[in-house]
Amino acid sequence: MLYTVRKATPEDMPSVLELIKELAVFEKEPYAVEISVNTLKEEGFGENPLFTCFVAEDATNIIGMALVYFRFSTWKGRTIHLEDLIVKESKRGLGIGKALYTEVMHFANLKGVKRVEFVVLDWNTTAVGFYKSTGATLLKDWYLVQMNEQGLRAYLKKEIRNKKIN
Amino acid sequence: MLYTVRKATPEDMPSVLELIKELAVFEKEPYAVEISVNTLKEEGFGENPLFTCFVAEDATNIIGMALVYFRFSTWKGRTIHLEDLIVKESKRGLGIGKALYTEVMHFANLKGVKRVEFVVLDWNTTAVGFYKSTGATLLKDWYLVQMNEQGLRAYLKKEIRNKKIN
Repeated sequence: MLYTVRKATPEDMPSVLELIKELAVFEKEPYAVEISVNTLKEEGFGENPLFTCFVAEDATNIIGMALVYFRFSTWKGRTIHLEDLIVKESKRGLGIGKALYTEVMHFANLKGVKRVEFVVLDWNTTAVGFYKSTGATLLKDWYLVQMNEQGLRAYLKKEIRNKKIN
Repeated sequence: MLYTVRKATPEDMPSVLELIKELAVFEKEPYAVEISVNTLKEEGFGENPLFTCFVAEDATNIIGMALVYFRFSTWKGRTIHLEDLIVKESKRGLGIGKALYTEVMHFANLKGVKRVEFVVLDWNTTAVGFYKSTGATLLKDWYLVQMNEQGLRAYLKKEIRNKKIN
């Protein structure tokens, strides 16, 4: 199958959001996607873009995407985080994911960063196997920690109350 | 003990780097810190800063720091990542870490992000217990994956070779 990988434009964002939603449905979390096409356009293509997106495209459609952004390690400096790499379900197993992954690694190399990082679900053995085969290292002794909006507000409320008591 | 928490300035970066190095020595990785004061100044205080740093300061010294930056979730949009929270070893157990953590949560609330995220080593039970007590959620089914500079170059070299053969 013929396809190309290129940097995304704002016009690709409706197709990119479709891919994001398709994956969320597959992961049984259809309502978890709270962003809109506008969010993607504003955050990815303004004067000071927060992320860079790559897309894979066949003759007619966007069939895959990879979204990356910079992070900052206090040991290594600027690094790149691969947030999402999605291939349309009907187009998997054709090397498109690997092509997008390679594009991300080229981008990281061009930017001269010391590291590319991402996370993978421990049960996703196909992805784990692929990442290992590319020379990436798995770190198994870390937990991800997330404080969501609701937790954040509850915590701050409690802190303010404690301050008043003290 | 009296101390204040405030946003860091470029002038604080030598003290911040000392804290980073002190922690690396404690973690038995003294040579892992590859950044310089200049890197911190350039990346944190340019026209388009990559991170925001907070410091805790007593009458004479910087005794703690927290470093955060924005990330982008394809489900939630803009989030904040807490990369490092360090308190000088001789000043631990006095609430300084919590004050810095609360400052970060205030910052996140002001910025209106949907999530604050970070990672913690699974054996660091004190930190794990603290984060849980603040209402944060631990995700235990993810692995961190890192591709370092050397791995990146080796991968790209192999890919180019494969392309020539095909």
